[in-house]
Amino acid sequence: MTARPANAHQARLLRLLRDGGPSSRAQLGDLVELSRSKLAVEIDRLLETGLVVADGLAASRGGRRSHNIRLAPALRFLGVDIGATSVDVAVTNAELEILGHLTHPMDVREGPVAIFEQVLAMAAKLRASGVAEGFDGAGIGVPGPVRFPEGVPVSPPIMPGWDGFPVREALSQELGCPVMVDNDVNLMALGEQHAGVARSVRDFLCVKIGTGIGCGIVVGGDVYRGTNGSAGDIGHIQVEVDGRQCACGNRGCLEAYFGGAALARDAEHAAREGRSAELAQRLEDEGKLSASDVAAAATAGDTCALELIREGGTRTGQVIAGLVSFFNPGLVVIGGGVTGLGHNLLASIRTQVYRQSLPLATGNLPIVLGELGPTAGVIGAARLTSDHMFSPA
Amino acid sequence: MTARPANAHQARLLRLLRDGGPSSRAQLGDLVELSRSKLAVEIDRLLETGLVVADGLAASRGGRRSHNIRLAPALRFLGVDIGATSVDVAVTNAELEILGHLTHPMDVREGPVAIFEQVLAMAAKLRASGVAEGFDGAGIGVPGPVRFPEGVPVSPPIMPGWDGFPVREALSQELGCPVMVDNDVNLMALGEQHAGVARSVRDFLCVKIGTGIGCGIVVGGDVYRGTNGSAGDIGHIQVEVDGRQCACGNRGCLEAYFGGAALARDAEHAAREGRSAELAQRLEDEGKLSASDVAAAATAGDTCALELIREGGTRTGQVIAGLVSFFNPGLVVIGGGVTGLGHNLLASIRTQVYRQSLPLATGNLPIVLGELGPTAGVIGAARLTSDHMFSPA
Repeated sequence: MTARPANAHQARLLRLLRDGGPSSRAQLGDLVELSRSKLAVEIDRLLETGLVVADGLAASRGGRRSHNIRLAPALRFLGVDIGATSVDVAVTNAELEILGHLTHPMDVREGPVAIFEQVLAMAAKLRASGVAEGFDGAGIGVPGPVRFPEGVPVSPPIMPGWDGFPVREALSQELGCPVMVDNDVNLMALGEQHAGVARSVRDFLCVKIGTGIGCGIVVGGDVYRGTNGSAGDIGHIQVEVDGRQCACGNRGCLEAYFGGAALARDAEHAAREGRSAELAQRLEDEGKLSASDVAAAATAGDTCALELIREGGTRTGQVIAGLVSFFNPGLVVIGGGVTGLGHNLLASIRTQVYRQSLPLATGNLPIVLGELGPTAGVIGAARLTSDHMFSPA
Repeated sequence: MTARPANAHQARLLRLLRDGGPSSRAQLGDLVELSRSKLAVEIDRLLETGLVVADGLAASRGGRRSHNIRLAPALRFLGVDIGATSVDVAVTNAELEILGHLTHPMDVREGPVAIFEQVLAMAAKLRASGVAEGFDGAGIGVPGPVRFPEGVPVSPPIMPGWDGFPVREALSQELGCPVMVDNDVNLMALGEQHAGVARSVRDFLCVKIGTGIGCGIVVGGDVYRGTNGSAGDIGHIQVEVDGRQCACGNRGCLEAYFGGAALARDAEHAAREGRSAELAQRLEDEGKLSASDVAAAATAGDTCALELIREGGTRTGQVIAGLVSFFNPGLVVIGGGVTGLGHNLLASIRTQVYRQSLPLATGNLPIVLGELGPTAGVIGAARLTSDHMFSPA
């Protein structure tokens, strides 16, 4: 089932059915600027392609009752979200509802061959579970910049072995369907826009704090990727002149101070220095610490853990404050692995942004946690590939 | 002559004629996706409105020679650029070529009534000089955020008395033509895009360093204004934690360190402290110093002036580096009054950005001075109002 819409009207109808679910012809007619006869022609053509099907009688609007229209129930999208330390794979229907979702710990530094072996095994497992026979499209998120038109990662700092790897080519061959590749942060933004906290917001920022820190930028409803696909790479914005050494080679970058990696390192340091009995105990038990240990310690009232979160939030807020002045967004979404740090983190980010940005930019600016957690990326990935499929061929 | 195009095709044809000058029907046909007969219909309708006229025989392409088409030669746009310390007013033809240009020193803090009296007097003077009988549209730039749909300045920090002043309403009544209002920095970006260094660049930043510092943001060829019209307000991005007191009430803002106002203040300070004989002499002669004194002293080889420029460039480069990481532009244009500081300033901005941003974002990133100098704003203003006039009614 690889049909594509023949024109922009059909593409629009398919997206309306994806985002709004089964609809009557009259409902669709209210949303598109087409004459009744032209609408009927386009819907008939879509019915012929098999992309949409008739689906029961619609509610009466006074006239003759007509059939509802919906996207083909057999359509399946695969959403893949490759993080620095884990892989998420999910299957959705045409309305991007998740039918099955698997997650697996994995180090992105193992390289594309090992990772995609794992991804294909997870996709096969989902298929075996009965939620999909095959896939009509797949979206893949990777934790680094992507040359979007070609679907190829470029110079990804935390992904040795991935530079220039033809992700789209390789996977579309294996999966037998079209594949779209994007930066993981852009897909989180798409996910939160499609099904989460950013629904109906046209200009917003989605800051993902995982192992590193990145930012998805949505302008006028569309993801903005920049000239080389590296837009939103905010983890290496300087927060301290001549500050801490960063893995990128510069000094004073945001990621040298915060993000999952920096937080774990600072927590271990604090534990060894005897500044937190709670963290020291956890370090002894587990041999290492992670952001979730800091979250747990903070929940238990550990002041050192709370201070680490507060400092990280302040540093992150410093950078976001600058971006808010520059970009004047309508919403800032905070997501990613360390959102386990929750409202303590959010509070210090908010304090810093509201203090440091101009009132005009912050006057009506919600700063909120993402709603979708680990499903944001896979929903965004499915959305990306469905946007492609529901575009004129 | 207040006709407007009736549909998107006509609007596109008018913009093509504005940007490309007189063209044959065949040339226009190559640029729009219209059948030959449909194109002929739309051009005939435009000829009827008087917005375009026939203009001599076009070069032969083998077939029968046809007439060139051009925008009505009598069309006139007024471009107004209100800076913190001066006002520029210019008249352009339909192709946005400047036919007359006046500039007048003036303090924006005198308020809208005094400023617009001056603007109207300058417009009358231009009319009296014979370059225009009347105006078909006017564009106005002001040095602060603007609620763009209504054409009203909002909370402009350096413009007491302007908050909420109905600029569009008031001026369209006085001038008897449609008026569009925007932030001065956005208009500089539009000007450099239309006729300057940013032609054909789709995603770029235009940093204006005048009395203060602002940034025009162009995304996909269009100015991005943000949710409240304050996008690009980068003068109050923090460059130093707990740094210098800024006029906005915060500490460590970029404008506390650089821009025309900060530079003049630092130069006077240096002169009084005996760090520069050159600047001390100028201060004695003139009673005060400005950015152009620093520029002249630097040209004369004064090391203190050079150091002030270098430091300012480094601070500005710090902020631009962050924006480059975030936005991944295809070009950064530096413009505004202090570009008299020229290549010394540019060199230190470049050094900082190339050192501090990730290689992927700076690999193909030209950082250049604007080409249009003080005409960028008025050309951008004329472009803004022509965009409005050349949109479907």
